[in-house]
Amino acid sequence: MDVISVIRAKRDRQPLTDEQIDWTIDAYTRGEIADEQMSALAMAILLNGMSRAEVARWTAAMIASGERMDFSSLSRPTTDKHSTGGVGDKITLPLAPLVAACGAAVPQLSGRGLGHTGGTLDKLESIPGWRASLSNPEMLGVLDEVGAVVCAAGDGLAPADRKLYALRDVTGTVESIPLIASSIMSKKIAEGTGSLVLDVKVGSGAFMKDLPSARELASTMVELGTDHGVRTVALLTDMSVPLGLTAGNALEVRESVEVLAGGGPADVVELTLALAREMLAGAGLEDVDPAEALADGRAMDHWRRMIRAQGGDPDAPLPEARERQQVTAPADGVLSRLDAYAVGVAAWRLGAGRARKEDAVQAGAGVEWHARPGEAVREGQPLLTLHTDTPERFEYALGALDGAVEVDPSAEAREASTSVVLERVSP
Amino acid sequence: MDVISVIRAKRDRQPLTDEQIDWTIDAYTRGEIADEQMSALAMAILLNGMSRAEVARWTAAMIASGERMDFSSLSRPTTDKHSTGGVGDKITLPLAPLVAACGAAVPQLSGRGLGHTGGTLDKLESIPGWRASLSNPEMLGVLDEVGAVVCAAGDGLAPADRKLYALRDVTGTVESIPLIASSIMSKKIAEGTGSLVLDVKVGSGAFMKDLPSARELASTMVELGTDHGVRTVALLTDMSVPLGLTAGNALEVRESVEVLAGGGPADVVELTLALAREMLAGAGLEDVDPAEALADGRAMDHWRRMIRAQGGDPDAPLPEARERQQVTAPADGVLSRLDAYAVGVAAWRLGAGRARKEDAVQAGAGVEWHARPGEAVREGQPLLTLHTDTPERFEYALGALDGAVEVDPSAEAREASTSVVLERVSP
Repeated sequence: MDVISVIRAKRDRQPLTDEQIDWTIDAYTRGEIADEQMSALAMAILLNGMSRAEVARWTAAMIASGERMDFSSLSRPTTDKHSTGGVGDKITLPLAPLVAACGAAVPQLSGRGLGHTGGTLDKLESIPGWRASLSNPEMLGVLDEVGAVVCAAGDGLAPADRKLYALRDVTGTVESIPLIASSIMSKKIAEGTGSLVLDVKVGSGAFMKDLPSARELASTMVELGTDHGVRTVALLTDMSVPLGLTAGNALEVRESVEVLAGGGPADVVELTLALAREMLAGAGLEDVDPAEALADGRAMDHWRRMIRAQGGDPDAPLPEARERQQVTAPADGVLSRLDAYAVGVAAWRLGAGRARKEDAVQAGAGVEWHARPGEAVREGQPLLTLHTDTPERFEYALGALDGAVEVDPSAEAREASTSVVLERVSP
Repeated sequence: MDVISVIRAKRDRQPLTDEQIDWTIDAYTRGEIADEQMSALAMAILLNGMSRAEVARWTAAMIASGERMDFSSLSRPTTDKHSTGGVGDKITLPLAPLVAACGAAVPQLSGRGLGHTGGTLDKLESIPGWRASLSNPEMLGVLDEVGAVVCAAGDGLAPADRKLYALRDVTGTVESIPLIASSIMSKKIAEGTGSLVLDVKVGSGAFMKDLPSARELASTMVELGTDHGVRTVALLTDMSVPLGLTAGNALEVRESVEVLAGGGPADVVELTLALAREMLAGAGLEDVDPAEALADGRAMDHWRRMIRAQGGDPDAPLPEARERQQVTAPADGVLSRLDAYAVGVAAWRLGAGRARKEDAVQAGAGVEWHARPGEAVREGQPLLTLHTDTPERFEYALGALDGAVEVDPSAEAREASTSVVLERVSP
């Protein structure tokens, strides 16, 4: 077996054999295949595609490259959620303790943000004392005791994917449905969850800009999960407008706590409950109503225990950015446009995200918006508040927002839509 | 400018701008763009192509990455030949001294063989004492004194191409017409020749297996040369059958000396004269008849001076392989097939070529064939003689020849064709 013949096969539109795929993933993990060879293969896959059978084998080979976790010792059924990433997507924060409060166990192994979408670990790290890194026994302990744990995925899960993901990030080979699906699912399957709900975002603020490609990604992932014995469904959800009213680390923690306290933006509450229902159904707990656990404080109780179990102080004041600047409405009218991608880039430029893996993020930085599309606004009313510790970034963030926020003086106000769930994909 | 946006543009079928191309070649040469990024770009170019304007700019940027030689101090017009590589292609050996004997100067900067086609330098190095490496002043000295020099290209010519060629070789990105054309032409233009004749091989033993792709490569290169002020024409020549009667280093030197002595295989003589006429026309010497210089011994005289000028002894016996094995005709009939690619692979496996750049070659190894397609043969008559110092390779070489040599008992003998020139491509 040699790598050039594998690259040539995919380049010339021949399907890769099981043996070629197994050998390639193993040889790349061991360092026998060089990065420059793997990136050429990744580009050939991006441009020429992979069949369902090839994606399945590729995923299985990446799972086999590392350890696979086992939660069978837990007394509760495990269920997990994965989002493909969106602007203001803080849903994991209220969702994990809510589902735990309903009787399932949620092992949420998360990543850090890169680019215009924030990372769950970065958000939680804005809580004083909270730490993301747990050993496997610590993780199992928190999961057993609280029912939910959010922590950094260990190095042992799908190391082939870890290496390939970092390579794709710097070689223009991220945007491939087979490579995205196999990357997500190899980690989630290796993580050992019994059931899985995928939140596949669609729209300007998401990876998938249109419904057909989101559907293809969702059905590929649902099939991969099902084939590996994980009960998997996907919701396609709207990401043309950012979720909730904030994008940023501490800003989104604050909004999540509002949701756990029974308030918060309607779209965040709706999506949290929709995902919770799917997760509970996957765990065999379809009769439990998560709305009750949210209303009666049990979800908040689990949140506080979950934060404390990882060293965090749920009562400590959250960090705030040193500087703020407002963007006001230029006229009376209706907010007709609030582009998710632009808001995400602005938050990122203000310091909420990182350009390189080794960069630090600002806990307090980000964007708040004070109206949602469809709402009436008055001239001079604040539309956005920008937060940062480094005020020289305001101009840079405002550049990203140019043309992304529009007020239409002649439009009629309408009820802001909260229907973020567009479609459901099941096996 | 950043490399990921350049990769994405080509990946998404957008033409690269002049600024993107200039920056990419410069940044890659300086090491700012990593190999894994360049190989992803090369694969995107291979699969999505480049326009004529992009190839022209890419070539110009590779020329600009290094020095450009200047032969204006010579009293004679310069002209050069480049072959895209074929089996038994020893034409440079008789051609360079022949054209020098006719009054032009031939600065032939050559490479080593890799894969199934032999390298000119490897062939000449089988002559005792001959050395390929010359400094620029030494090279100019030989060229001025003899009129022809064959030597290794210095590191200063098109360093971007040198780096990119080595990368393409290990990443399955060799077979791209824009990348092949720009690689060849950047070196040839930087080399500073006033005119150039391209021998583009077509058939099983060549890179280009069919006429349309050979035509496309030829016309791309002719246009690139013309645009840079080099008078350039191309001949498309047949490489379905190997050239002459030998493939191997010392074996081909022996055959070349036969041609210079007025004998040798008819196809080698024909192609040598055809290319010599084109080179002389390019140098403004269209009235000189190379057939005379071959017949009256002037070409042989220039050969001997050229070999001596680089330390070689033209009178020393050539190395011979320690072991030989014959393949005989299985029946009376006509030799109906002698596949160029198979003969090239067999010679390579016998030790005439190298698998890796750092391998040594055997001077005496190779394949001789004793009949050409169309000739009548008798049962038991030798068809091939295999030469090697390492007899354990015979079986390996015979494996390559399986099905590649056929005798048809019912066919009529016909005159063996010597018409190797298929088409001519001029600006």
